[in-house]
Amino acid sequence: MLILVINAGSSSLKYQLLNMEDESVLAKGNCDRIGIDGHIKHTASDGRTYDKDSDFPTHTEAFEKLVEVLTESDAKVIDSMSEISAVGHRIVQGAERFSKTVLVTDEIIQAIDDLQELAPVHNHPHALALWACKKVLPASVPQAVVFDTAFHQTMPEEAFMFGLPYEDYEQFKVRKYGFHGTSHRFVSQALADTMGKDIKTLKIISCHLGNGSSITAVKNGECIDTSMGFTPLDGLLMGTRTGSVDPSAVTFVMQKHNFTPSEMSDYMNKKSGLLGVSGISSDNRDVGTAADDGNKRAALAKKMLNYQIKKFIGSYAAAMGGVDAVLFTGGIGENASDVREMATEGLEFLGITIDKALNKTIHGDLKKISTGKTEVWVVPTNEELLIARDTLALVTAD
Amino acid sequence: MLILVINAGSSSLKYQLLNMEDESVLAKGNCDRIGIDGHIKHTASDGRTYDKDSDFPTHTEAFEKLVEVLTESDAKVIDSMSEISAVGHRIVQGAERFSKTVLVTDEIIQAIDDLQELAPVHNHPHALALWACKKVLPASVPQAVVFDTAFHQTMPEEAFMFGLPYEDYEQFKVRKYGFHGTSHRFVSQALADTMGKDIKTLKIISCHLGNGSSITAVKNGECIDTSMGFTPLDGLLMGTRTGSVDPSAVTFVMQKHNFTPSEMSDYMNKKSGLLGVSGISSDNRDVGTAADDGNKRAALAKKMLNYQIKKFIGSYAAAMGGVDAVLFTGGIGENASDVREMATEGLEFLGITIDKALNKTIHGDLKKISTGKTEVWVVPTNEELLIARDTLALVTAD
Repeated sequence: MLILVINAGSSSLKYQLLNMEDESVLAKGNCDRIGIDGHIKHTASDGRTYDKDSDFPTHTEAFEKLVEVLTESDAKVIDSMSEISAVGHRIVQGAERFSKTVLVTDEIIQAIDDLQELAPVHNHPHALALWACKKVLPASVPQAVVFDTAFHQTMPEEAFMFGLPYEDYEQFKVRKYGFHGTSHRFVSQALADTMGKDIKTLKIISCHLGNGSSITAVKNGECIDTSMGFTPLDGLLMGTRTGSVDPSAVTFVMQKHNFTPSEMSDYMNKKSGLLGVSGISSDNRDVGTAADDGNKRAALAKKMLNYQIKKFIGSYAAAMGGVDAVLFTGGIGENASDVREMATEGLEFLGITIDKALNKTIHGDLKKISTGKTEVWVVPTNEELLIARDTLALVTAD
Repeated sequence: MLILVINAGSSSLKYQLLNMEDESVLAKGNCDRIGIDGHIKHTASDGRTYDKDSDFPTHTEAFEKLVEVLTESDAKVIDSMSEISAVGHRIVQGAERFSKTVLVTDEIIQAIDDLQELAPVHNHPHALALWACKKVLPASVPQAVVFDTAFHQTMPEEAFMFGLPYEDYEQFKVRKYGFHGTSHRFVSQALADTMGKDIKTLKIISCHLGNGSSITAVKNGECIDTSMGFTPLDGLLMGTRTGSVDPSAVTFVMQKHNFTPSEMSDYMNKKSGLLGVSGISSDNRDVGTAADDGNKRAALAKKMLNYQIKKFIGSYAAAMGGVDAVLFTGGIGENASDVREMATEGLEFLGITIDKALNKTIHGDLKKISTGKTEVWVVPTNEELLIARDTLALVTAD
């Protein structure tokens, strides 16, 4: 059974083709610069590549090219798209409508597009990719949609509501949705499996730290709280995103800069975070290097991130009534041993003790790095695999 | 030694006259509706009152009336203002300039007024009251200023900085200041004294819950973090204030309502919180009654507050590397036993166990309500007394 996984952006179409017999990746690539000019970069698992400019006026042409490369190019991996059992799409925003992976219908594509106000950068491109996929693929190939927000739909209302007037929730759907749900679901289940425990008996704090970062409290297999909010801006300090900010500072800074709301939103999403605080880079590695070289603002950015992670761990332990395991995933979580060490420093009262020497050696491996009662793990994430698994489960269900 | 304590607002001048021999209150009152028409309500400790309309075009006339009532009215408690050793003023915003109580000079009054941009509702009226006091009182009576923010000036930078570009801190002083500092300092010291321990050895989480609410982590006698931020809007759900909100929800809601930044600020400060979520009232008691009567939005508001307190307790335990005692103070903290019970539910993993039966009986008394290793206390706050003590200490210092 082959599953094609699609992650579409406004000008890109990333894909992976997975063989679900052994969950291996047959090929992956990206159709980039859609609507600008166009370029496809494709790599088959045996190392063959296809890397060429191509004309992509819309997602449809990109999808057509992707089909051609998969089935006809020198780097082809299949003979026909009918060999593919299904396509699974990553969708950023499912809001309250979608709490699980579903098969695609025209009505569902429209519903995803209708949510674009809640995810202006993502949902409309997702819909474009869904329509393109429907147009290009044989009608016999089902499509499924997997939502970043779905895993978080189990949050209780006291966790997802803001202190704004209730009417803003009723009329404008302003609430915490949470993101990275596919990753949090994947890694928390992977951890429970590795620990040999039933996830329904565990309190897990899942720290997905990358260019975008979020922390989720997973109690008995369900998300009960998460650090990202209405959009992926809230919570932790990120590459270029502020994370949480006093709402009165938002209106104050807007006034000072004479920003419109959308200019302020851009400012908080693209000029802030590690980049804005350090003045160096949005990349945690660059910030770390600058901090080591004595740059005070870089050192501050680093301390802020570690301190905020630590506070979320305490906060979510309280929310769950304790914690059995903390996991780190994502580009920073899997690789930055200094972040894992500093963010968990002083948490012995929670039963958390890191094996510092071991921790330093772990980069992207599934590995326990703690010696205390509360286990701390590095768990590599794989959102594409979970999307493929979800899709497979749906199309093979009775 | 008599100390007069002044808490000035834009249209009010609250006062207490304390006898520092036994820290008793000789008289207290409020000059209200300054700049509108004017009214003074005054009560002496023996029950005599003075309650009359009076003309208060500015804080100066209000101060003159207050002197007249204190020294000449039927409810007078002294013969002359020269009996007063000093006046202590509550000042909301001291920013980074003021980290402790200081004696007033003209330059300091000006500096307080210059901070009005950071506290538009409070600091200018404080300055008006300081000038009025200086004009009306004998020059021999010193004045001291006690800052709500001073106690929080020990926060490390990773706790007080937001993830906005660093330039917003440099140019506009945008950072977390924290408020209620006088209360947090008073109650944390009172708790250490009552526990018979040196505050320098304790990790205390101080929950000041009232119409405005904040939680502070007090480690070894110093504030290391607090929930209010740049202004008193951030942190917990309050009477009419949102508390923390995803910054992207702020700009989104502004756009939806077509609000200017200052309209949005008003909306988040005055229409939100318990009032905005419940649609019932800004008063926690009314919200509780409505929730008991089955009102779902009131029940939600209540759950949000309790859940948020619980998360801050966990978060600050993590920030301090543990917690020895949690205290509740303020109108809600001292009186709402249900809040104390629900906010600490499930925190047994932190050594917190409430004696539920005992807790229900405690309203405003200094009392331990826990049975676990981590002590939980109700500690009545008294900001006026701390202001008086600080003022006395300054004027009696060598």
